Amino acid sequence: MRTHFCGLIDESMIGQSVTLCGWADVARDLGGLCFIDLRDHEGIVQVVAEPDSAAEGNAAVIATAAQVGYEDCLRITGTVRKRQAVNNRVPTGQVEVVATHIEVLNKAEPLPFHAHENPGEDIRLKYRYLDLRTPEMQRKMRTRTKLVQALRRWLDARGFQDIETPILTKATPEGARDFLVPARMHPGEFYALPQSPQLFKQILMVAGFDRYYQIARCFRDEALRADRQLEFTQLDMEFAWVEESDVQDTAEAMIRDAFRDVMQVELAQPFPRITWAEAMRRFGSDKPDLRIEMEFTDIAELVKGCEFKVFTDWANAEDGRVIALRAPGAASLSRKQIDDIGAHAAKYGAKGLAWMKIEDPAQGREGVNSPIAKFLDDATLAAILQATGAQGGDLVLFGAAAYNTASEFMGAVRLKLGKDLGLVREGWAPLWVTDFPMFEWDDEAQRYVALHHPFTAPAVDDVAELQANAKTAVSRGYDMVLNGNEIGGGSIRIHRPAMQSAVFELLGIDAGEAQAKFGFLLDALRYGAPPHGGIAFGIDRIAALMAGTESIRDVIAFPKTTGAQCPMTGAPSPIPDAQLAEVHVSVRPKPAKVDEPAAE
Amino acid sequence: MRTHFCGLIDESMIGQSVTLCGWADVARDLGGLCFIDLRDHEGIVQVVAEPDSAAEGNAAVIATAAQVGYEDCLRITGTVRKRQAVNNRVPTGQVEVVATHIEVLNKAEPLPFHAHENPGEDIRLKYRYLDLRTPEMQRKMRTRTKLVQALRRWLDARGFQDIETPILTKATPEGARDFLVPARMHPGEFYALPQSPQLFKQILMVAGFDRYYQIARCFRDEALRADRQLEFTQLDMEFAWVEESDVQDTAEAMIRDAFRDVMQVELAQPFPRITWAEAMRRFGSDKPDLRIEMEFTDIAELVKGCEFKVFTDWANAEDGRVIALRAPGAASLSRKQIDDIGAHAAKYGAKGLAWMKIEDPAQGREGVNSPIAKFLDDATLAAILQATGAQGGDLVLFGAAAYNTASEFMGAVRLKLGKDLGLVREGWAPLWVTDFPMFEWDDEAQRYVALHHPFTAPAVDDVAELQANAKTAVSRGYDMVLNGNEIGGGSIRIHRPAMQSAVFELLGIDAGEAQAKFGFLLDALRYGAPPHGGIAFGIDRIAALMAGTESIRDVIAFPKTTGAQCPMTGAPSPIPDAQLAEVHVSVRPKPAKVDEPAAE
Repeated sequence: MRTHFCGLIDESMIGQSVTLCGWADVARDLGGLCFIDLRDHEGIVQVVAEPDSAAEGNAAVIATAAQVGYEDCLRITGTVRKRQAVNNRVPTGQVEVVATHIEVLNKAEPLPFHAHENPGEDIRLKYRYLDLRTPEMQRKMRTRTKLVQALRRWLDARGFQDIETPILTKATPEGARDFLVPARMHPGEFYALPQSPQLFKQILMVAGFDRYYQIARCFRDEALRADRQLEFTQLDMEFAWVEESDVQDTAEAMIRDAFRDVMQVELAQPFPRITWAEAMRRFGSDKPDLRIEMEFTDIAELVKGCEFKVFTDWANAEDGRVIALRAPGAASLSRKQIDDIGAHAAKYGAKGLAWMKIEDPAQGREGVNSPIAKFLDDATLAAILQATGAQGGDLVLFGAAAYNTASEFMGAVRLKLGKDLGLVREGWAPLWVTDFPMFEWDDEAQRYVALHHPFTAPAVDDVAELQANAKTAVSRGYDMVLNGNEIGGGSIRIHRPAMQSAVFELLGIDAGEAQAKFGFLLDALRYGAPPHGGIAFGIDRIAALMAGTESIRDVIAFPKTTGAQCPMTGAPSPIPDAQLAEVHVSVRPKPAKVDEPAAE
Repeated sequence: MRTHFCGLIDESMIGQSVTLCGWADVARDLGGLCFIDLRDHEGIVQVVAEPDSAAEGNAAVIATAAQVGYEDCLRITGTVRKRQAVNNRVPTGQVEVVATHIEVLNKAEPLPFHAHENPGEDIRLKYRYLDLRTPEMQRKMRTRTKLVQALRRWLDARGFQDIETPILTKATPEGARDFLVPARMHPGEFYALPQSPQLFKQILMVAGFDRYYQIARCFRDEALRADRQLEFTQLDMEFAWVEESDVQDTAEAMIRDAFRDVMQVELAQPFPRITWAEAMRRFGSDKPDLRIEMEFTDIAELVKGCEFKVFTDWANAEDGRVIALRAPGAASLSRKQIDDIGAHAAKYGAKGLAWMKIEDPAQGREGVNSPIAKFLDDATLAAILQATGAQGGDLVLFGAAAYNTASEFMGAVRLKLGKDLGLVREGWAPLWVTDFPMFEWDDEAQRYVALHHPFTAPAVDDVAELQANAKTAVSRGYDMVLNGNEIGGGSIRIHRPAMQSAVFELLGIDAGEAQAKFGFLLDALRYGAPPHGGIAFGIDRIAALMAGTESIRDVIAFPKTTGAQCPMTGAPSPIPDAQLAEVHVSVRPKPAKVDEPAAE
């Protein structure tokens, strides 16, 4: 239907006849002289319908052009010529197309909104096709396509086999909530949508596939946040006959090459590697944003004997921690701003946030402004100033609490300060975080829960050794972190049935339950399972980072709202009872509200 | 963990030390001299543990080797040497590896079955990891991977954008039965799994993406046959600003290149193109297998006045058809064999199948053996013999019925004869079938149903013209057929809202229903929808054809049984009622059986 793309018309085509298809981006009728900006996926070119054109029947062309409305679908044939009023803002601005024929392929009604009106997200999602038509959204979606292409090309060239795993599978009530699908042929039974292809990819290793990948759709029925969707996409990889370094080196090279291909960016080589313990100690996060240079200073040893009770209590507690965080140049923050930071820290468990504005560290007590200075003797104060390296104009914030709590809320403070103060440097800061704890103790459930997932191998190879040291056991898990986002996570898996059973047992899953839920995995491990491991990357998040957007919804063609709905299609929707009967379920009556008075 | 792959050890490595990982394919202990065939995904190499090796500590190596069992996971270091007893059946048969170190990475228990025992499919699916480990299944799965890679590479190079569409979407009760997913956040509402990305890909064209593809998972809750799965994979493509030839030429070139890449086969260029009407007329199928040369001969005109009532009735009926099908060399079929063919035809609606064995056509009546010969006068008989071109030794079969019925059952007879008589030639016979009817009249529902789907454009552009001639209207749909399989199907879509509404109306979908179900599509067509069209290919089927297997289950890693179950994971499975309560559904009680006496 066309000979060229609008956005690619250039001076080399001057004098040529071209046929273009596209949308009327702008149409102006200057009384017998019409200009149409015709747009396709490659860009925009100006089309002119003018009376002095040599073409025959030009009156008809002008008449058609005069009727063209915003976003009409057009096919235009015309001759390329040099443009008199050059427009340097568009790549085709040197030329224009003098129309000899205009066909209206489809008339557009007046649009429900215009992009420049910046409509709310619900409207944008309802008319997603109009939103996606904007150059900005086209660019974002194209970035995602490029990312996926770069990853596939890389993996295909290295012998990774792309293998699809089922979407209709078995419910495994470990981890997040499953989506359920009633089975018509098996009344009262249900399929579940996979939270990840984890078990299938391990089975594929046992099945001899050596190197596997899949761009896999995964499903978690959890509350939606800005960076969560009911369904999301991960690059899922698994390797047989490997150790950590094999997986990490390969994954790192792949990500580095993808950033070079898509973004023309060179990531650090190699990525920094820090243990989970170090990440918590220095940054209070298992996914530290290394673009922010601020680090924690542990001052428990300095304040064990001071008179500020919060400090001394936690400094002397076995599991306590006292953290100082120096924020360069932040002494100018107002009391209100510092209170806001405290409120932010409170969300992460802080009971309060002590602070110290530094005017001149050389002057000791005279050079600081702090509500807690009076509780600190001169030596302690000086020691703190020295330990933190505080300079005039800095703000030092203090957190004291149980180790993990203090780490976490001060980590949140570090992030907020970094952003608020503009201390996040430009660029990309990737790293590996390794040596995660194997288990976390869940006080409520009175049992261990897996920090990664129950198939992650412990660092120790011996079952008895793991059982004896479960609390402090370290796993063979690893995360790839980029600019404060966990973009990938993986581990070496358990490949021996005895170890897998021992881990299930430590997680409070007894042998019967383990057999019922994961029997096929335990079976598979018994029949020649090679050592194996892998990693999975969050495609939505990486694409969003590359596209420079905060919201993964900008790189998903048809996302759900945070209310788990699709405003365009209207999903989810009620289903006639007869159709539900076919799959042997019914909708439960709404439970009577507790606060409603019962009918007498 | 390894320096080389087992299957790639060759004479160039003689004298080198190598470390290999793999499964013990065979292990023989000849009393202090052990042979292990070590297997990885690349193949097998022989490992020897022998007492006269120069390596130190070899007694330990032999002791370990002597304990190795079938399918144990091993890591072996050793030296490559020329093999004395060359084995020409394996690529590595010129060499062997003299072990200096053997590590048992994972012991395998005795397997539940061995491949050579040819276990039933349920057992193979239960222990799918063992089944997939066989070289034959590895080859089939690798063929699928190669196909998908070839297709993606081709499309990526031509600017097609890979875009994911939702799996959790809205129920659209047109076509097959939807899988439903209760929505936890919206009590009483449900998502549905997509039967195809049809509406989303059309929306993407309206959204300005120009060229789209996706290797998409699709879901249909229908009875499973050998070539159907609850979930299946299609290569879904859509093009903006196109006509039929754009889509067809592109798709044909892509498939031709994929066969060249994966199979080193050159498909016909161009593919033959026949209309649906011609396909039904010549082959009685909308997906004719052109590897079978037999074609129908219409003989209604010849038998209008004969005395065989079945022939004359249908020859004179407005909608009747009388078909002769000559099966070369089939006169040797027994009466029992011909009856079997009749029984096969009956499944497709035949009331009976007349036949004629030809001994010598030159002898006329004397030269044929047929129960119906007595009803035909000499001239008619001679005319039939001439029209069919029957030769001595041929069998001619006759079908008479309503046009479509006769075509269909004789088409089934043609296929069966072709296979039974070995008349299916080797190789690949692709073709396009075009010009499908727009609608089929559904007598039961007393309305038209769409032969393709309700978004397929009619050949006519004018709404009134379509309405006036709905019964005979031809669509802009097309199928790609290969060796009797519909491997791809597509169409130019309706891009104007008035035409889409008219088609909905002809299909008995009133305006309110259309708005409720497809309102977003109708909306999208109003706001600048370009002419567009596309096609979708069945990846499972093409992979099965390439892999040379009848069953698509052989090219799906974890397929469901025909009973819609996964014997490995046990899906589907019962779900605790508390978990169902979270998603606001309950299992319906089983309906009381009608034949059970009611309790008094």
